[in-house]
Amino acid sequence: MENFSVNNNGNLAINGCDTVELAKQYSTPLYVLNENMIRQACKSYKDAIAKYYDGRGLACYASKALNCLEICRIIQDEGLGLDVVSEGELYTAIKSGFKTENIHFHGNNKTDDELIMALDNNVGTIVVDNLFEMQKLDKLAKQKDCVANISLRIKPGIDAHTHDYIRTGQIDSKFGFALETGEAFEAVKNAIELKNINLKELHCHIGSQIFDVYPFVLASQVMMDFIAKIRDELNYTIENLNLGGGFGIKYVDKDNPKPYELYIKEIANAIKIKAKENNLPLPYLFVEPGRSIVGEAGITLYKVGSVKTIPDVRTYISVDGGMTDNIRYALYRSDYKAIIANKASMPASNIVTIAGKCCESGDLIQENANIQSPEVGDILAVFSTGAYNYSMASNYNRIRRPAMVMVKDGKSRVIIKRESLDDLIKNDI
Amino acid sequence: MENFSVNNNGNLAINGCDTVELAKQYSTPLYVLNENMIRQACKSYKDAIAKYYDGRGLACYASKALNCLEICRIIQDEGLGLDVVSEGELYTAIKSGFKTENIHFHGNNKTDDELIMALDNNVGTIVVDNLFEMQKLDKLAKQKDCVANISLRIKPGIDAHTHDYIRTGQIDSKFGFALETGEAFEAVKNAIELKNINLKELHCHIGSQIFDVYPFVLASQVMMDFIAKIRDELNYTIENLNLGGGFGIKYVDKDNPKPYELYIKEIANAIKIKAKENNLPLPYLFVEPGRSIVGEAGITLYKVGSVKTIPDVRTYISVDGGMTDNIRYALYRSDYKAIIANKASMPASNIVTIAGKCCESGDLIQENANIQSPEVGDILAVFSTGAYNYSMASNYNRIRRPAMVMVKDGKSRVIIKRESLDDLIKNDI
Repeated sequence: MENFSVNNNGNLAINGCDTVELAKQYSTPLYVLNENMIRQACKSYKDAIAKYYDGRGLACYASKALNCLEICRIIQDEGLGLDVVSEGELYTAIKSGFKTENIHFHGNNKTDDELIMALDNNVGTIVVDNLFEMQKLDKLAKQKDCVANISLRIKPGIDAHTHDYIRTGQIDSKFGFALETGEAFEAVKNAIELKNINLKELHCHIGSQIFDVYPFVLASQVMMDFIAKIRDELNYTIENLNLGGGFGIKYVDKDNPKPYELYIKEIANAIKIKAKENNLPLPYLFVEPGRSIVGEAGITLYKVGSVKTIPDVRTYISVDGGMTDNIRYALYRSDYKAIIANKASMPASNIVTIAGKCCESGDLIQENANIQSPEVGDILAVFSTGAYNYSMASNYNRIRRPAMVMVKDGKSRVIIKRESLDDLIKNDI
Repeated sequence: MENFSVNNNGNLAINGCDTVELAKQYSTPLYVLNENMIRQACKSYKDAIAKYYDGRGLACYASKALNCLEICRIIQDEGLGLDVVSEGELYTAIKSGFKTENIHFHGNNKTDDELIMALDNNVGTIVVDNLFEMQKLDKLAKQKDCVANISLRIKPGIDAHTHDYIRTGQIDSKFGFALETGEAFEAVKNAIELKNINLKELHCHIGSQIFDVYPFVLASQVMMDFIAKIRDELNYTIENLNLGGGFGIKYVDKDNPKPYELYIKEIANAIKIKAKENNLPLPYLFVEPGRSIVGEAGITLYKVGSVKTIPDVRTYISVDGGMTDNIRYALYRSDYKAIIANKASMPASNIVTIAGKCCESGDLIQENANIQSPEVGDILAVFSTGAYNYSMASNYNRIRRPAMVMVKDGKSRVIIKRESLDDLIKNDI
């Protein structure tokens, strides 16, 4: 894995920090993020847009992957925009000092409070999902005597799923307006007519954890044709094209993600061709990487509390976290690679099932993982946990959510504190 | 559903409270619990133990189903014991004033801190899962110059699963000592030898959401035979038998749970026969109902934010909660019944998919649910959400966890406050 080196003590190191020392210093379970990798991922999108699309675009970090104050600060520092999907994510962004003009607000069911919060804080673009929302937003904007810049979420009919649960973009989805049925065109007409919304953008999102560039090219073509149709039939110019996210990352050795700039290169190329074909101005381009900004930058450290070999069945090792801090195996059977951090240079010749500490049989982090010979007290590191781990964490079994530490060039600092026992009962009456 | 009546306004009512009014008063999403049903469920176990087992036993509420201060208070008030599975659950119990001698501490990987907390607070029984833990506990108890009362978690080899993810008790499980392999017998021998632990109990747990009484009878027989073997071969008397939980509840109309007292009746009968057969004293009996205490007592109220009909595919209705407050459909494809609370007397002749507001296609509460004709602004009630909903809730998408309201005889009160926006960033640095 990229996020991996072995130091002189034979321990796993991340960006110059010994993970066994980190576990000792901050206790376990512990989320650890590599700041350099996050910043590098940001740069790769930014540079690719500069190189292949004359800088006429912005990568917006999809913060549902991992949202906290410090991440928002780093994203802004790297010159990216931000996606939020709730008042909670927007609130965090605002508190971090994020420029709200660079924020897109997503969601299939934004509440009145959320739309009001977006308007009050001059959020750059509200991505409208359905007609109820469009009408509601127009009304709310009228009450506030403002005009809301909007995008419309389109289902382009392209299905680039890698897992049934995380596919989007196809017609059978709770998100957006279908292109094929004419619903999207009607929505555009409707949006143009409304006085307190300004339709600036079309948006689509074709899936998650996609390794193939072609679906993005196809989506670009479909969306550009739709922009041309709107210009031709309604004499209206869509200024921005937002192609969403879904760029695949490496979870396990067999994953072979493309360099992110390749997606941008091919998307840019497809848009330029279509623009020329249709005599359209080049739209301003948005992409929305989430997982690919933070996913591989993160690892989780656990302490092994028991090793249980069931003869002729399997060996379970139990760690001091589990589905409460990483629910992705329980939810999607997601692959993860693990290593015993204090035996990082030894061969991974044992096959084990990594169990969490929840009172639930399904609380597994991985089945049949290849790791070094496990013993009680070992520190286990699980790779590529930067995205959709902390963000999906729960207090199931009233287990406290772990701390998160950012490491950079051999130094570490807490960016999210470990929950306290009192945090667990703070809202109990 | 039991937890259901329609009032004069045609609205769904719970224990005398109009759910539409509750939604207005406390906002949505909202967890609502029926106090009478919780207390009635407690009584049914207590009364059955009195009736069929001469009161020589205790039902211990498995609080992982739903743990908060007020629930702990009600459980104690009803004379039940309590199961905890983490320091967080134990901390909550202690803060509620729960008598710790009536607490069982479970878990396949208790940390040192958790064991120390249990010892320091004189927790009644620590259910030891594995040999590492047994040795660790003995050592810790020695350091504190005390003797810890323990139970051993046994895998009796009975597999009463209703769903692959939630089965336990069989040999391939992260929990406990296997009976068949001799592992359990060795653990008993080991426990007897250790000076700072006192083996008082054997424990098993054969599954979740079980509708059949027979597996419990079988488990009773297997465990009693094991107790006899221990007496015969080791001349040691196990005082307590703990048969765990897993008593099924009604989620949807087709579910047909047994009255809880029937389980106790048949279990008591099986134990008595085996005791006579083996010339054993009757063990003190523990059972551990969780879901069946709080599950059917709970409903969740949502507001419908959009209705989206995809021709020839399906109708999605989006509510203002979702997998963040109820992850069970995403995780297990669990069945739930829903009703439009403000149209409770109308026919449920529409088939819809109930989607949450998370930016994730898998965020569904139910597919193909029969409900009344849906409109934006409707209040949707989902039944049987008292167990494993709040307890598994997350802040995914930085969505705030809902408030929980307890209703009793037409009155309502908040028992868990809705999270604030500041709660979301309280540990961010």
